[in-house]
Amino acid sequence: MQPLPDPFLSSAEEVLRAACLPPSKSLLPSAAPAGSSPPASSVADPGVPAQDRAVSCLPPGILSGPPTREDPRAYRGWRSDSFSRVTRVVRDIPVAVHLDVDLLFPASYCQLRAASLVQSCHRETKAMAATGAGAKELKNHHNDCLVQLSNPNVAAMKEDVLYHFSLSTSTHDFPAMFGDVKFVCVGGSPSRMNTFIRYVAAELGLAHPGEEYPNICAGTDRYAMYKVGPVLSVSHGMGIPSIAIMLHELIKLLYHARCSNVTIIRIGTSGGIGLEPGSVVITQQAVDACFKPEFEQIVLGKRVVRSTNLDEQLVQELMQCSTNLNEFTTVVGNTMCTLDFYEGQGRLDGALCCYTEKDKQAYLHAAHAAGIRNIEMESSVFAAMCGACGLRAAVVCVTLLDRLQGDQINSPHEVLAEYQQRPQRLVGHFIKKSLGRA
Amino acid sequence: MQPLPDPFLSSAEEVLRAACLPPSKSLLPSAAPAGSSPPASSVADPGVPAQDRAVSCLPPGILSGPPTREDPRAYRGWRSDSFSRVTRVVRDIPVAVHLDVDLLFPASYCQLRAASLVQSCHRETKAMAATGAGAKELKNHHNDCLVQLSNPNVAAMKEDVLYHFSLSTSTHDFPAMFGDVKFVCVGGSPSRMNTFIRYVAAELGLAHPGEEYPNICAGTDRYAMYKVGPVLSVSHGMGIPSIAIMLHELIKLLYHARCSNVTIIRIGTSGGIGLEPGSVVITQQAVDACFKPEFEQIVLGKRVVRSTNLDEQLVQELMQCSTNLNEFTTVVGNTMCTLDFYEGQGRLDGALCCYTEKDKQAYLHAAHAAGIRNIEMESSVFAAMCGACGLRAAVVCVTLLDRLQGDQINSPHEVLAEYQQRPQRLVGHFIKKSLGRA
Repeated sequence: MQPLPDPFLSSAEEVLRAACLPPSKSLLPSAAPAGSSPPASSVADPGVPAQDRAVSCLPPGILSGPPTREDPRAYRGWRSDSFSRVTRVVRDIPVAVHLDVDLLFPASYCQLRAASLVQSCHRETKAMAATGAGAKELKNHHNDCLVQLSNPNVAAMKEDVLYHFSLSTSTHDFPAMFGDVKFVCVGGSPSRMNTFIRYVAAELGLAHPGEEYPNICAGTDRYAMYKVGPVLSVSHGMGIPSIAIMLHELIKLLYHARCSNVTIIRIGTSGGIGLEPGSVVITQQAVDACFKPEFEQIVLGKRVVRSTNLDEQLVQELMQCSTNLNEFTTVVGNTMCTLDFYEGQGRLDGALCCYTEKDKQAYLHAAHAAGIRNIEMESSVFAAMCGACGLRAAVVCVTLLDRLQGDQINSPHEVLAEYQQRPQRLVGHFIKKSLGRA
Repeated sequence: MQPLPDPFLSSAEEVLRAACLPPSKSLLPSAAPAGSSPPASSVADPGVPAQDRAVSCLPPGILSGPPTREDPRAYRGWRSDSFSRVTRVVRDIPVAVHLDVDLLFPASYCQLRAASLVQSCHRETKAMAATGAGAKELKNHHNDCLVQLSNPNVAAMKEDVLYHFSLSTSTHDFPAMFGDVKFVCVGGSPSRMNTFIRYVAAELGLAHPGEEYPNICAGTDRYAMYKVGPVLSVSHGMGIPSIAIMLHELIKLLYHARCSNVTIIRIGTSGGIGLEPGSVVITQQAVDACFKPEFEQIVLGKRVVRSTNLDEQLVQELMQCSTNLNEFTTVVGNTMCTLDFYEGQGRLDGALCCYTEKDKQAYLHAAHAAGIRNIEMESSVFAAMCGACGLRAAVVCVTLLDRLQGDQINSPHEVLAEYQQRPQRLVGHFIKKSLGRA
């Protein structure tokens, strides 16, 4: 199987230039002479045991005072990390695997193509909305904004089993089941996504007394999925890996169903930084635990970094909806996405903790100074994957507590329940408005 | 709040020496002169855009032929990465946060203390078992093997809300509810963990006709928890973050309940490498996507690496149980733990994929050569957290497919259902035997 054909960029080199990347060859450390053996001592590497080690990944200013203009750390440390990270030789493996870095770069191409597609699509959709076009027009909108994959292999598959949805293209008619989907809302909790579909059905005038919304993924308990009219509501569990599995299968579902002009919004909960609990944050940029707007993952043993940019126009549209609603405080801010809820977010109340309140406060204040207004656990991969597939995406989370004041979520149940409705009300209003029903 | 008092190691320096770590000061880059400003251009860093970048983290032998004895990459690349990773200056933040690395190292101390405790506990438990002591004796066993936390703050808390379990020390009597727990089994799917508790109840002769096992965490849909006699069965969702949240709250639950001599086993599903589907793998070492037996996370902006060692004796005991059962193939091997199911495991059928079948096969064969027999998404943090808190832990997963043969899980439902029972049968037998009932 080969990388995607390249209709409007003539070579991988052009893609790299377009993406402002350095030439791919420079990403790899120079090859060692073939046939040479690793040093015997590198098998166990006794000098570097796998005990706790702590090395700062924060910008140098945070770590040990701001660097001088002459201080090379601001760039060089980060670059040399990216370009020369070499791990221990675990074993004397006779297999020499040459993973050509060029093969990975078509992802940039996919992103560029997707970004171009989605921009032109949304220009059209916006123009249509401006002329008062509603649901009917959206439904009939021509198909040049079909959901795209960044994987040429799927088109060649006879059957695609979406294992974690318990759905398959050979047993389910995806275009008939999902072809009219225009809005996908995702959130961690299955019951919350069930509540949301009921709420949206009522808001759009699509609810009928006593109507149930069956779980489309009833064959599994990994995720739950509900649908009413053009709205799909899907749970994603907690954390980057859990939402990533769901997004891979969701995007393939939308692709198989030949959906077009889809907007996807995560409606979630989070910890706030310096905000009154119950405030809603619309994410401007999803950043990692070192405040970088990037999502990093290991693919075939290589680190791949993707952008976490979100749709700026969608942020503004959602903010306008909140202003219209005028029901709760809403801010636009950066959202930090972490891989852990306790140590990973600087909590002092986990099973493990070896830092102090003072350390925690310093970290959270630094995050606030970097424009971060809330912390959750899914936004970075959500932004990266939706961006790579050209889906218009947003993240809207309510803050359940102010982390500068504490760690435990101990507000009364009914207060938390009302907080959790806020992103639903905001996004429900956005959908109504988008369909010309607000 | 201060780090743990230090009863048997006289200073942080000794802890570091005991853990074979370099002096803590050398972990931090030398501080920049106070009051200096970051270079203006570092704010945006246009030369390093957040587009896809791929840098290998595999041992050098895998990446580009094995290094020579003179090749510094085998150590130096990894070390310099650990010691000098410095990220971009995101903003000109006036806050200078000094995170003293010494404060993080008591985790090593916690690990050492926990390892020492658990060793002496299990020596006693084994001696007791050898003399035919059963459930009653285990229950009456003196309390010097109480579950420990690696966090001194929790003991000082008036109330501890285990938010994702919907349980609290102020509303639930943890010692009464959980004080007799000796075995905790965890797995991804709530329904599978419900099936397991029914199976174990029947195996231990604790089941009564028509008996239901209520979900102890019924107040939330994040996790499900069931109990019968000394066995607790808890779901953990999918992926490292999801199981990490559960483990933080589970270990605190066991601590508040004053549980002692607890064994914890993950019973899960996985993709096999070079094994007949349906084979069971008992994990010797949990390794990451670069084949390292480590779990890395970001804590307050610093990278912390923990060991993923598991209890060797428990591995042997479980293997013996499988031999006794003689129902299915069981092997002891390394388990690779990834943060993604599709690209992260080299699948060709995700929404994103920019590598070929050949690349994938090369990666999987290299993994096999490194002793890896299966791939899943929770074992590394499970091993790291249980190890840090002194819990005797094991991972037992069935393989649903052989990844060398394909990516899709498309065996018939009844075949997969039978596969998923295998770790349950093995661990059920182990528990029976441990309680002197086999």
